[in-house]
Amino acid sequence: MNIVNLPPRRPLGKIHVPTVTLAHGGGGKAMKDLIDDVFISAFAGASAPALEDQARFDLAALAQLGDRLAFTTDSFVIDPLEFPGGDIGKLAVCGTINDLAVGGARPLYLSCAVIVEEGMTFDMMRRIAQSMAKTAADAGVSIVTGDTKVVQRGAADKLFITTTGVGVIPKGRDISVAKVRPGDGILVNGWLGDHGAAILAARGDLALDTSLLSDCAALHGLIEALLTAAPGTRFIRDATRGGLATVLNELAEASNVSIAIEEELTPLRPEVCGVCEILGLDPLYLANEGKIVIAVPPDEIEAALAAMRAHPLGEKAALIGHAGDGEPGRVIMKTVFGGSRIVDMLVGEQLPRIC
Amino acid sequence: MNIVNLPPRRPLGKIHVPTVTLAHGGGGKAMKDLIDDVFISAFAGASAPALEDQARFDLAALAQLGDRLAFTTDSFVIDPLEFPGGDIGKLAVCGTINDLAVGGARPLYLSCAVIVEEGMTFDMMRRIAQSMAKTAADAGVSIVTGDTKVVQRGAADKLFITTTGVGVIPKGRDISVAKVRPGDGILVNGWLGDHGAAILAARGDLALDTSLLSDCAALHGLIEALLTAAPGTRFIRDATRGGLATVLNELAEASNVSIAIEEELTPLRPEVCGVCEILGLDPLYLANEGKIVIAVPPDEIEAALAAMRAHPLGEKAALIGHAGDGEPGRVIMKTVFGGSRIVDMLVGEQLPRIC
Repeated sequence: MNIVNLPPRRPLGKIHVPTVTLAHGGGGKAMKDLIDDVFISAFAGASAPALEDQARFDLAALAQLGDRLAFTTDSFVIDPLEFPGGDIGKLAVCGTINDLAVGGARPLYLSCAVIVEEGMTFDMMRRIAQSMAKTAADAGVSIVTGDTKVVQRGAADKLFITTTGVGVIPKGRDISVAKVRPGDGILVNGWLGDHGAAILAARGDLALDTSLLSDCAALHGLIEALLTAAPGTRFIRDATRGGLATVLNELAEASNVSIAIEEELTPLRPEVCGVCEILGLDPLYLANEGKIVIAVPPDEIEAALAAMRAHPLGEKAALIGHAGDGEPGRVIMKTVFGGSRIVDMLVGEQLPRIC
Repeated sequence: MNIVNLPPRRPLGKIHVPTVTLAHGGGGKAMKDLIDDVFISAFAGASAPALEDQARFDLAALAQLGDRLAFTTDSFVIDPLEFPGGDIGKLAVCGTINDLAVGGARPLYLSCAVIVEEGMTFDMMRRIAQSMAKTAADAGVSIVTGDTKVVQRGAADKLFITTTGVGVIPKGRDISVAKVRPGDGILVNGWLGDHGAAILAARGDLALDTSLLSDCAALHGLIEALLTAAPGTRFIRDATRGGLATVLNELAEASNVSIAIEEELTPLRPEVCGVCEILGLDPLYLANEGKIVIAVPPDEIEAALAAMRAHPLGEKAALIGHAGDGEPGRVIMKTVFGGSRIVDMLVGEQLPRIC
């Protein structure tokens, strides 16, 4: 029996579409069926040994991979759930893999907690679970434990996913936002702003027709290649919410340096600039889901660029500027017209539910 | 700027109540302020060293505590957020601590990912964050990393929290749902159904006036005492969603045993039974947040009971029945009237958003 008062069901037309009901969140038979049907069947095909309440790993085996455990979490609330270049499942797996990898960790295990709105179709749930499973398998990462909650219609927007990851940091690696020194090169691994612009276009309430795809990708392979070629790398951060500008501001503040980048060197697709121009957005603040900002010492810039360009996810890697000893915390961009402007931290909100 | 079309704001009366806006989820300055104000300030007072994007732990130090890492996650969507005996923050910390502890792990670190609805008041956010911090500090557990997402009004119901935990299992411990044998005693640590009944009453849409409190509590201390006194303990599980009945069914199925419990021995407050009688609910299916179901070999039943009764969270511990060699997977309750009834797995939904 249901205690809460539910709003009336939306008519689903004549065809019966199997959807999630509150019974699927009750902890009983229906929930077990939902989890077995949607998640266990998908994740069992990936590298997960078994989806259980509590996953367990041998500590001695972990210690052979490195000397520190890394641990990170992210919730994903992106709208729409499926978009050009990905879906919330792929995003949730890639996002947490990247959060581990940018700290120098090798991503190993993920947990997956989903909050589902009553009325979500089983078809879409299965597609998203399969997308998670495929992304994890391709990345060599296991989804080892999870949780499912169902809320009544109107109490959530279809589906939210929280992934938490553990990985191991190999001995000797020391990557931190506070380690950057004047003279260090600032690099990115390719086109910026694709994810933000693609989601914006995919929302459909703007009459924008573009061929833009989200850049959503797992970057741990690229990062391993980078760290092998440039072991002195000081800092790596994925430029997600708030984009390049936010990462550079955090970096400049934490490392007490100034940063100057050049517009001419910054990889931006003409199509992304076009979308931004129409909407009055600044592409430097657009979210990315497959782009990292890197700081490397001067003598490793070339090696870092070469290693990234040799990787499929870094072909357009570029040196976009340098850290300096100007006003600490200040980020400047030299424009194509020869002037320069301050790139400040984002104050308001550019795009809600971008990840 | 906001791209999505937002519903009109509800009037808040004449007094200005600071609330969360979409800007607080944008990845920029406002989000940093929200996180600093609400979370960092609360968790810094707890045992967390610093709330950073990626937490890191020394693997050698972990290996001194045991030989296996345990990893578990849960989302919390309880309605209402604050209830007699606790709030969603306390629940989210205790729930994940308990999920670690029932597998024999010593809980060490938690991550905390929150999804906030635009319009949530800062006051309530702060109360809940402080409750999380206090619960974690009291339990000796650190909240070490987190994430915040804000969704527009109507896209979530105020606040959802996902906690993920890591702990270490001491060498030699082997607790599993498949290890129970005929003759094992089935124990609980006290009154059943308090959480479910308290939440039901707290929802307010039923004219129920009770003094019931949720039993929400961190049980790792009790479980350590139990495992010291009864090291042969086969199985421990917290009886959350789906209650005692669901745990017993899972246990009977996984261990291929029958289970018989006695109504007379099962600790149920008269007030909980009264609420259930009025509403046509079965207290065996009511959720608990501070109760565990335990299976111990016959020769350790007395020691297990004594250890639990000596702990403040186990004063009402009781032997409620035994595993047997009857029909595998079947759970039976002998009633106070001398009859017996099948206790099946919950099929529908008893109470949505109970945790």
